[in-house]
Amino acid sequence: MEDTFVPFRGIKNDLQGRLMCYTQDWIGGLRAGFRILAPTTYIFFASAIPVISFGEQLERDTDGVLTAVQTLASTALCGIIHSIIGGQPLLILGVAEPTVIMYTFMFNFAKRRPELGSKLFLAWTGWVCMWTAILLFLLAILGACSIINRFTRLAGELFGLLIAMLFMQEAIKGLIHEFHIPERANPTSPEFQSSWRFGNGMFALVLSFGLLYTALRSRKARSWRYGSGCLRGFVADYGVPLMVLLWTAISYIPAGSIPKGVPRRLFSPNPWSSGAFENWTVIKDMLNVPVLYIIGAFIPATMIAVLFYFDHSVASQLAQQKEFNLRKPPSFHYDLLLLGFMVIICGLIGIPPSNGVIPQSPMHTKSLATLKHQLLRKRLVAAARSSMRKQESLGQVYGSMQDAYWQMQTPLVDEASSSQGLKDFKESTIQLASSMGSINAPVNESIFDVKKVIDDLLPVEVKEQRVSNLLQSAMIVGCVAAMPFLKMIPTSVLWGYFAFMAIENLPGNQFWERILLVFTAPSRRYKVLEEYHATYVETVPFKTIAVFTAFQTAYLLVCFGITWVPTAGVLFPLMIMFLVPVRQYILPKFFKGAHLQDLDAAEYEEVPALPFNLASEGDLRAASFADDGEILDGIITRSRGEVRHVCSPKVMSSTPILSQELTSLQSPRFPDKVYSPRISQLRGNQSHEGVGRGPFSPGEARPSNLRKSG
Amino acid sequence: MEDTFVPFRGIKNDLQGRLMCYTQDWIGGLRAGFRILAPTTYIFFASAIPVISFGEQLERDTDGVLTAVQTLASTALCGIIHSIIGGQPLLILGVAEPTVIMYTFMFNFAKRRPELGSKLFLAWTGWVCMWTAILLFLLAILGACSIINRFTRLAGELFGLLIAMLFMQEAIKGLIHEFHIPERANPTSPEFQSSWRFGNGMFALVLSFGLLYTALRSRKARSWRYGSGCLRGFVADYGVPLMVLLWTAISYIPAGSIPKGVPRRLFSPNPWSSGAFENWTVIKDMLNVPVLYIIGAFIPATMIAVLFYFDHSVASQLAQQKEFNLRKPPSFHYDLLLLGFMVIICGLIGIPPSNGVIPQSPMHTKSLATLKHQLLRKRLVAAARSSMRKQESLGQVYGSMQDAYWQMQTPLVDEASSSQGLKDFKESTIQLASSMGSINAPVNESIFDVKKVIDDLLPVEVKEQRVSNLLQSAMIVGCVAAMPFLKMIPTSVLWGYFAFMAIENLPGNQFWERILLVFTAPSRRYKVLEEYHATYVETVPFKTIAVFTAFQTAYLLVCFGITWVPTAGVLFPLMIMFLVPVRQYILPKFFKGAHLQDLDAAEYEEVPALPFNLASEGDLRAASFADDGEILDGIITRSRGEVRHVCSPKVMSSTPILSQELTSLQSPRFPDKVYSPRISQLRGNQSHEGVGRGPFSPGEARPSNLRKSG
Repeated sequence: MEDTFVPFRGIKNDLQGRLMCYTQDWIGGLRAGFRILAPTTYIFFASAIPVISFGEQLERDTDGVLTAVQTLASTALCGIIHSIIGGQPLLILGVAEPTVIMYTFMFNFAKRRPELGSKLFLAWTGWVCMWTAILLFLLAILGACSIINRFTRLAGELFGLLIAMLFMQEAIKGLIHEFHIPERANPTSPEFQSSWRFGNGMFALVLSFGLLYTALRSRKARSWRYGSGCLRGFVADYGVPLMVLLWTAISYIPAGSIPKGVPRRLFSPNPWSSGAFENWTVIKDMLNVPVLYIIGAFIPATMIAVLFYFDHSVASQLAQQKEFNLRKPPSFHYDLLLLGFMVIICGLIGIPPSNGVIPQSPMHTKSLATLKHQLLRKRLVAAARSSMRKQESLGQVYGSMQDAYWQMQTPLVDEASSSQGLKDFKESTIQLASSMGSINAPVNESIFDVKKVIDDLLPVEVKEQRVSNLLQSAMIVGCVAAMPFLKMIPTSVLWGYFAFMAIENLPGNQFWERILLVFTAPSRRYKVLEEYHATYVETVPFKTIAVFTAFQTAYLLVCFGITWVPTAGVLFPLMIMFLVPVRQYILPKFFKGAHLQDLDAAEYEEVPALPFNLASEGDLRAASFADDGEILDGIITRSRGEVRHVCSPKVMSSTPILSQELTSLQSPRFPDKVYSPRISQLRGNQSHEGVGRGPFSPGEARPSNLRKSG
Repeated sequence: MEDTFVPFRGIKNDLQGRLMCYTQDWIGGLRAGFRILAPTTYIFFASAIPVISFGEQLERDTDGVLTAVQTLASTALCGIIHSIIGGQPLLILGVAEPTVIMYTFMFNFAKRRPELGSKLFLAWTGWVCMWTAILLFLLAILGACSIINRFTRLAGELFGLLIAMLFMQEAIKGLIHEFHIPERANPTSPEFQSSWRFGNGMFALVLSFGLLYTALRSRKARSWRYGSGCLRGFVADYGVPLMVLLWTAISYIPAGSIPKGVPRRLFSPNPWSSGAFENWTVIKDMLNVPVLYIIGAFIPATMIAVLFYFDHSVASQLAQQKEFNLRKPPSFHYDLLLLGFMVIICGLIGIPPSNGVIPQSPMHTKSLATLKHQLLRKRLVAAARSSMRKQESLGQVYGSMQDAYWQMQTPLVDEASSSQGLKDFKESTIQLASSMGSINAPVNESIFDVKKVIDDLLPVEVKEQRVSNLLQSAMIVGCVAAMPFLKMIPTSVLWGYFAFMAIENLPGNQFWERILLVFTAPSRRYKVLEEYHATYVETVPFKTIAVFTAFQTAYLLVCFGITWVPTAGVLFPLMIMFLVPVRQYILPKFFKGAHLQDLDAAEYEEVPALPFNLASEGDLRAASFADDGEILDGIITRSRGEVRHVCSPKVMSSTPILSQELTSLQSPRFPDKVYSPRISQLRGNQSHEGVGRGPFSPGEARPSNLRKSG
């Protein structure tokens, strides 16, 4: 993302970069085999369920002009296009809440205008989409996405938390509605007697909390203590869909004794009914729109353009964070250009356009990281075993593992990152090999646990390919067709799922973790140091952290408040845009540069190399605790951003004496500020244990357990 | 508990022992001040709520002849008598489920006999109580309680788990009933329409699971990361009652819109109504009972006698386990004698007799251990601070702390145990003092965190006194009076509380932990070793553990099954009695002595001193991690019985180097079997990490975190 304003240059670079690995995107994806289904289904549900309920919301707010069929159609169409000819295949497209708010606003506007009315509403939105597309083209061509590096963690995480709040709000509103009579329903029908409404509401509570709890637990299945490894893996991979099925099934248990409307289930039009697709023909109405309104359409268009430009880029950025160690190049400018074309198509066939969505996009990357880990692991284990069968020595075994790893690397990669990954791998191999004593003695499984060793070695990598994205879009097409089946899902399960999505994405959001830190009792703050934690915890005075977080929270609440204001609601993207100048010019006046650096490292400030080396370090170490990749969920969700708290996995996987060596080996790498007064300060009255709890104390040999705790 | 059959001798010894510390029982209790209220309320709820619902059960099964008023009256009466003139004040008395089963059985028998009928039922039970009392006297006089040391962990924990199952069964049955029309209710009244019954059932699910979840969480409040220390302490102490209040309040939220009967609330007769106490006069009917039945009463009497003898003694034993380091003598024989008198009284006034109850009695001891810890801590901190103000040296500070500790010791104690406690305290003081560097330099809070140090030093001790027991009995008297208020509690909250009691008492039950171990995936078994664990985990082959546990489980299920058989149900105490010969003569034929030793150490086999030294060791170490005593809940619930897995707290609270010294200091104490193949075996394929995970690896410096985990 270089800082240029030469027209088209950004787009050209993106295209070049992505074309290099285009074929590999497909081959690599297909090679993954059936395992690709795990991330696919996970993302399919994460993407389909909100789109459906946004569709229902839209149906209520637009008197049924737009329905879940349209939102799903848009999501599927744009998803397929993007996954095939899009730039960054990690990016997930969908109709998002902000879009729904915009469309609702525009519908209310159009309805009040006799010249338009709800009849010409879609035609008018067609024009809005036209203008939007034009603006997006301009932004793409002028390389506006270069500014994306000015959207720092501050803005990105604030946006992420805002989305989480909107999801949670949906969930709560939905649950409350379960107790009331829905609009456009016949209040006299039996299920709306106060008694059944009460029962329905209570049942909804049971179902949604049941889904929320079980879904959250099932995601952690890899660290369960019971059940075989593959079972645990299966539950962790498919747990969420399984739970949706489970609780849908449970919702049918009392079916015999209660009226049909309890519990309430998804209400969606039959896509096969005649009326469902009349709006495909919206294009012919577009010329009936009065010129004044065609021009006026420019105003909402700017809003949508800003929204999409921001939303699309940030979603893409969050899906490509540093700690994922992506090997393939980003593609911000080209994706924005493509988005423009997709907006036109959606506009012409009268469906709301899609854009890159949070949290689905980062969720997609995370699930692919787990997948990649499983694949690498499988391959390396095979390699090691075969060479052990050949009675080869430890050195040779590691050699063959390195070859296998090398082969697994994507051929077309920008040198820096890949060589980095391989270097790390080599280093750790050697370290571990030496730690195992004689390199030349032949080894066998009994004295040498391959799986464990490999988990110790593997860095975090992501299976970057286009198949999962294409498949999930295809599944959404299936969704439109299968609408009659979707209707079986109780709405309350939906609300539970919304809450799940909101919560699932909190850990790893440093903004969120800072809020927690602020509310942590002073005497307990040292516990944060015992877990994985970002640099700022040790380097920035607590007071500064608190002030910074307070500011960010206030800003968040303002943004959230604005979404409530019916008409001005559409302005909230501007609020977040506004964070760029705030971060760049205002914050530095109130906070020390070094502190801002640690709280919110921005590309355009020169970043000291150290923390980012540590980052990959930290992740390596973290990954090294993986047990059937269980920790992987851990690192990626937990330690988004760089991790200071490094401690050698080898301590765990070999003798204490060795651990001593290693720590002594590593110490030089660390700035002595680790021993700074900050620690004791943070630890409150634990001071006399400062050393004992210091990052290198052998005590730290258990972060995996620490992480599991709670 | 010596092995004698000289009549009266057991009783005499008990009386002597308890009289020595009788006055101190009261003074000590009163000295504790308001803090005594924490364990008191905790036990009051744990004891009152089940008694109430057993009362309701009895009311259903005896056509209202006996109600919650009678069960509460019995519990209160016997509780007061026992707390004042009883032997072991840690023992909690109450009407238990088995008694209810017996009485139901007897009622069904009496009802079918024209000579008795439900009119003479109570008079007949009066005779049953007479016989029961006589049998209890005999057992007490003949020192039958000496056999109590033949009730090994095997029998005790099996019984504990059986009780837990009965509680859980009650909870589940209760929840199911919420969906149906209760007996003796008017089915035409609005709240029993199918619609409201459905709503009521769902509401019940919400309330009971809400209570269960929040109550379990609130018990762990001390380890929360948020909120001030005293708030956390308050929630942990009073959390359960608070949650009952909270969810009762919540149950009133929808009150406006729903009929009065939803949710269902406790149904209990008004104790002030005329009929409520007519059965006080049962004594005058007793002579109307036909002689044949007076003699026949002997048969159920034997059953009840066996039941009480067993139940009372085991409850008392579980309340006085080794790891509580009790200072005051037990009193099995005398308590049994006293129980006899109380049974007569109850029989004469026609209320079901009470006996020592599980799990309330052990719960009582646990809560008092926490209390004692808080008191000791408060006192020692004061002492240390004052001497620090005097600019005294570290040595002097520890000296003053030792004096304070000495003063806190109960004056009348059997030498062995107390000196033990003090020796341990002295030892650890010195160790720690030396670990703090120069003994003679003056110290101040900044370099020396008193609270932490004291938590490191304090052994587990129990505040043994009679006040808490008397107070909770008095509260139950209040209960009878306040019945109208109790009626506000929803029955569903009751079911939630039952489930809570069942679950709250599982951890620490080695039988339960073995069941878990058996179901743990082989690749995860090593994790058990990372936590506190009993000897057998390392010394007994897994296969043996599995077989032993399978046998115990089968036996448990048989006992549980028997409770279902309407008439034979009363036989289940015999089943558990039968475990004594099984354990003593049959099991040794199938299991190695050493293995039985570790799985179920019995008094009458000579026990190698080692594990029990280790026991206190282990607990001391464990206690040393206490943070505001948070860990205390930990040890006592977790590591019931001796703990092999010892690791020095000092590692945590001082430099790693010191930890090395200490471990080297300790190693000699350990049998080298710690390094035996068992570990690697248990660890499945973790072998190459065997040493790294061995008990002395610095990695082990985090058991407190380990314990918190999960």
